[in-house]
Amino acid sequence: MKIYDIITKKKQGLNLSQEEINFFIDGYMNKSIESYQASALLMAICLRGMSEDETYFLTQAMLNSGESVDLSRFSTFSVDKHSTGGVGDKTTLIVAPIVACLGGKVAKMSGRGLGFTGGTVDKLESLTGYKSQLDPEEFLTQVDKIGVCVIGQSANLAPADKKLYALRDVTATIDSIPLIASSIMSKKLASGSHNIVLDVKCGSGAFMKTSDDAALLAKEMIKIGKSFGRRVRALVTNMDIPLGWAVGNRTEVWEAIQVLSGKGEKRLTELCVALATSMVALSLNIDTGLANSMVSDAISSGKALSKLREWIECQGGDASFIDDADKLILSNYKTEYTANKDGYISKMIADQIGFASMHLGGGRAKLDDEIDYTAGIIFHKSYGDYVKRGEVIATMYSAKNEFSECIATLDNAISVTDTKPSEATLIFDIL
Amino acid sequence: MKIYDIITKKKQGLNLSQEEINFFIDGYMNKSIESYQASALLMAICLRGMSEDETYFLTQAMLNSGESVDLSRFSTFSVDKHSTGGVGDKTTLIVAPIVACLGGKVAKMSGRGLGFTGGTVDKLESLTGYKSQLDPEEFLTQVDKIGVCVIGQSANLAPADKKLYALRDVTATIDSIPLIASSIMSKKLASGSHNIVLDVKCGSGAFMKTSDDAALLAKEMIKIGKSFGRRVRALVTNMDIPLGWAVGNRTEVWEAIQVLSGKGEKRLTELCVALATSMVALSLNIDTGLANSMVSDAISSGKALSKLREWIECQGGDASFIDDADKLILSNYKTEYTANKDGYISKMIADQIGFASMHLGGGRAKLDDEIDYTAGIIFHKSYGDYVKRGEVIATMYSAKNEFSECIATLDNAISVTDTKPSEATLIFDIL
Repeated sequence: MKIYDIITKKKQGLNLSQEEINFFIDGYMNKSIESYQASALLMAICLRGMSEDETYFLTQAMLNSGESVDLSRFSTFSVDKHSTGGVGDKTTLIVAPIVACLGGKVAKMSGRGLGFTGGTVDKLESLTGYKSQLDPEEFLTQVDKIGVCVIGQSANLAPADKKLYALRDVTATIDSIPLIASSIMSKKLASGSHNIVLDVKCGSGAFMKTSDDAALLAKEMIKIGKSFGRRVRALVTNMDIPLGWAVGNRTEVWEAIQVLSGKGEKRLTELCVALATSMVALSLNIDTGLANSMVSDAISSGKALSKLREWIECQGGDASFIDDADKLILSNYKTEYTANKDGYISKMIADQIGFASMHLGGGRAKLDDEIDYTAGIIFHKSYGDYVKRGEVIATMYSAKNEFSECIATLDNAISVTDTKPSEATLIFDIL
Repeated sequence: MKIYDIITKKKQGLNLSQEEINFFIDGYMNKSIESYQASALLMAICLRGMSEDETYFLTQAMLNSGESVDLSRFSTFSVDKHSTGGVGDKTTLIVAPIVACLGGKVAKMSGRGLGFTGGTVDKLESLTGYKSQLDPEEFLTQVDKIGVCVIGQSANLAPADKKLYALRDVTATIDSIPLIASSIMSKKLASGSHNIVLDVKCGSGAFMKTSDDAALLAKEMIKIGKSFGRRVRALVTNMDIPLGWAVGNRTEVWEAIQVLSGKGEKRLTELCVALATSMVALSLNIDTGLANSMVSDAISSGKALSKLREWIECQGGDASFIDDADKLILSNYKTEYTANKDGYISKMIADQIGFASMHLGGGRAKLDDEIDYTAGIIFHKSYGDYVKRGEVIATMYSAKNEFSECIATLDNAISVTDTKPSEATLIFDIL
């Protein structure tokens, strides 16, 4: 078997066999296949597509390239959630304790932020003492005991996906539905949960620009998950505008506490309830209506907030932040971002707002940059709100007194216009 | 400007600007663009195509990446010929002296053989003493004096093409008409001849499998040449079967002498006359009919053979081979390849026959392999001929007494069948 022939076959639009896909992944990992050959094949896949079988084979090859977490001790109660990335997405911090307090088993590995996208692990580590590196037995024991544990991603899960993704990222071969679907699903399958809820974003801050494309991606991932015997549900949701009020790290934990206290922003709360409902329905194998009322009760009763406290303490974090959330929005410096005219907020470009927070120190431009956990933005106004000239739209927080780059980026990200914009759909579809 | 955006643009099927194409070629040469990015772009070009303008810009960028030969001292008389590669193609050895003895100026750089394809420079160097490395002034002075000089290719002509071609060769991105056309034409333009005759092959032994595809490639190259102010003519010819009787190095020089002595194989002679006619018509700017009769006369009068002798001697080669051509087919060992049944020769797969000669030592598997100049194959029977079981089809020559691999390859390459095959067209079109 030769990689040249495999590239040629895909270039001609033919389907690759399981042996050919395994040969590619094995060869790329053991370096007998060069990255310039891999990138040529990836481009051919972007332009020629992959069949359902090929996508399954690719997912399996990447899954088999590393270890898998064994969650069989939790039977069919283990449940994971994956979001395809976004700005201000603190849903894991909210849905994990909700689901855990209702009996689901959330044994989750999360990523770090890069560029305009934040990472759940960074947000958790912004709480003094939080341990995101546990050994496998500690990890599973905590889930057993309190129903939830969130740690950093192991490098050993689907390492082929990691290596291929890095190549796709510099060769303009990201936006292919079979490549995105197999990449996400290989990691999720390796993470071991029996039930998987996918939050597939569309809009300016996401890979998929339209809800139709996002639905195609969602269907592809559901098919893959089912082929591997998992139960999968997917929500297609809006990422044209950031999720909730807060962007940053401690600022987002602060907002998670607001939602779990029943005081959260409306759209963020709605999305978290929908995600948690799907997770509970799958993991407890119950009807969606029942799951939904259980989720609402978990918030209103304060049980979910108690579970958040229990979780953070169990992982060594300072839970006093939870009892006094405003400690989370203390920083050396803060400045207000104000409206420069009267009108309606008709644009809030998600990725630009992510970059604005990065400029404050709240995100990483490069993988080894350090994060200022106190840095971030909290919006006081939402998309569609009316503002008067000089009125405060957002507060910016940072350890440094350098706000000009953030303000310039927000000027690009936010528009105030005379006419009220049409309402932005939050959840396009549940599949 | 970012290579990521350029790859994305081409992936989406949009046209690249001259600035973008220059950025790609410059960046690939100065290593600011990685080969895995270049190969992704090349694959996108293979699948999305290039406009006429883009092909022109790419040709110009590769041409400008190195030096150009200045043949202006020969006014509009300089003439070059290019074949898109093949097996048994010794036409340069035949047409160069024909054209030179009629007043054309053949200042030619030729390549070396690799894999199943032979190289003109190797064939010339098989003549003891032939100098294929001359300094530029010696090269031009010889053309001035006797009308012809053939040397090895300079590494400084279109180096970007050389580097890109090496990448295409290992990433299955060869077969794109704009990439092939710009690759060939950048080298031909850098070589400086005012007139260019292209022999565009089609069939099993060529890049282009059909005459329609070869005609498309030919038209693309003619357009490029004309955009650069050159006169270009193209012949679309058959490379399903090898050209002439001989494959190898000295064996092919031997056959060239047969053609120039008026005793050549019919199809090879016909092709050489057609190519030389186009070269003479272009370089002397005369009508094709007149050129054709001048070419026939150059052969029948012996003037072209004398010119070959003058040329070889002028470049230091042993011309006694020309007076006693059979010295060219002496080797330590020779063996006959015979028919294993009665019937018609209905298949002679060109590339397989090239590999058979390579196995005897007559070609290179790798760039730094040494060639056995005495190795090669001479066919006594042609495509369509009737043979009886045990009758000699070919003689194999080699310095080593190891013929089994060659015989096995010929067994695959040659078929003898009960029914006579239809005649193979030689020249499909002249454009």
